[in-house]
Amino acid sequence: MVELYHFEPNANGGKPIMALNEKGVPFTSHWVDLLNFQQHTPEYLAINPKGQVPTLIHDGIVITESTPMGEYIDEAFAGPPLRPRDPLERWRMRSWSRFADEYLGPSLSMLGWSRGIVPLMRKKSPAELERALQAIPTEERRRAWSKTIHNTFTEPELEESRRRLTVSADRLEAQLRQQPWLAGSTYSLADINVFNMAAALPHFMPAIVNEKSTPHLLEWLLRVGSRPAIRAALALSRNSLRPPDSAPTAEVIGGAR
Amino acid sequence: MVELYHFEPNANGGKPIMALNEKGVPFTSHWVDLLNFQQHTPEYLAINPKGQVPTLIHDGIVITESTPMGEYIDEAFAGPPLRPRDPLERWRMRSWSRFADEYLGPSLSMLGWSRGIVPLMRKKSPAELERALQAIPTEERRRAWSKTIHNTFTEPELEESRRRLTVSADRLEAQLRQQPWLAGSTYSLADINVFNMAAALPHFMPAIVNEKSTPHLLEWLLRVGSRPAIRAALALSRNSLRPPDSAPTAEVIGGAR
Repeated sequence: MVELYHFEPNANGGKPIMALNEKGVPFTSHWVDLLNFQQHTPEYLAINPKGQVPTLIHDGIVITESTPMGEYIDEAFAGPPLRPRDPLERWRMRSWSRFADEYLGPSLSMLGWSRGIVPLMRKKSPAELERALQAIPTEERRRAWSKTIHNTFTEPELEESRRRLTVSADRLEAQLRQQPWLAGSTYSLADINVFNMAAALPHFMPAIVNEKSTPHLLEWLLRVGSRPAIRAALALSRNSLRPPDSAPTAEVIGGAR
Repeated sequence: MVELYHFEPNANGGKPIMALNEKGVPFTSHWVDLLNFQQHTPEYLAINPKGQVPTLIHDGIVITESTPMGEYIDEAFAGPPLRPRDPLERWRMRSWSRFADEYLGPSLSMLGWSRGIVPLMRKKSPAELERALQAIPTEERRRAWSKTIHNTFTEPELEESRRRLTVSADRLEAQLRQQPWLAGSTYSLADINVFNMAAALPHFMPAIVNEKSTPHLLEWLLRVGSRPAIRAALALSRNSLRPPDSAPTAEVIGGAR
């Protein structure tokens, strides 16, 4: 039996949904309401003491952290392989996944939280937010949420994140100019992991990521986004992060255009 | 044919040396003099454009980034497996390796650079250091070196690194109390990856990491450090980072005590 606790099918939450879908593994989806701090309730902390999503439960085994979780899904279940056979392509898969975790992801996350989550937090009462902060189990997450709740992002750090997104777009375009998938000739976890972050780039950086400047990146986003497994994952969205003035990127990329 | 470009056999540089030794793969060792910025010379940048060590060259294939490099070594060469067979143990292996890369490693690195490399940089002329900074190929590395050269580490960030090292020691002790190796019953890349960082803990944090407070962590450090593959790797040290007032941790851990 497979159960998955997740929020929106973007960033880290989308990765295991898409991997399970690609392999044809049925699972029970449990929505964790991140914006109302359900991930820090005693019930959820009993499942994942770090209070992070996603969490996969497979026959009672608890698996956290979406990147190693992806390789677990590929190793523990039957279905089409999500990792190339060739050691060099596998290395490239892991190198791109690391890039998503350590470079592209944190930059995107800082801009996304600053733009999307800060305004949502402003609608809550200071007392509720203070209680929410106190319930966060790790110092790291408490600092990240405190920054969002008090909107203490600085212009230099936002600027550095924008710079890193530009570098990311350039690197992705250069790689996808050479080969159809990020690992090489085979669709893999690297495409799933990077897509979950990079799908937001045309929305966040339209002057940098567009059909003229980054045609291969755009074409790859549409090609990944149109896979049935990815479309089914994106269809789980509740649009909780939808900006008031535009359609969510996930819909633009994964949708019918 | 296997060639490895590396600096001291600690932190990231030690990982592929130990993995190759464990598998019994002969390789040509090329010392890159990090403290004299050899990693930013045109000759080295032709091999690794990011100017980072280690770099592995296997029959002309260039492999960078020590963590995915470890899995490449295990997949591309014969010899004893360095990854468990069980998917859950493999997940644990990757989760601990990620912890070394994203949490323990950066904290240790900040303290190590601040303590060990700042004084070494002070011996060089400002003009030489300015030229060295200009030659760094990526903005991220330039910022890191600039911080070291100008010693602009702040007390709050050093304090946060010390806090993270304490959390790291607690987590490692808790895991190693339950099982002999980090992944579970099998010695794996997780032990190699974490050992390369954690071997410095008794030296950096003697009040936190010692035989009384963290006996399982200490016993594991000695057990990993006494493996022939690890001892042979540590024997490649040139003691470039040896503090004037004490023996290097690598010798304490890997040596004959």
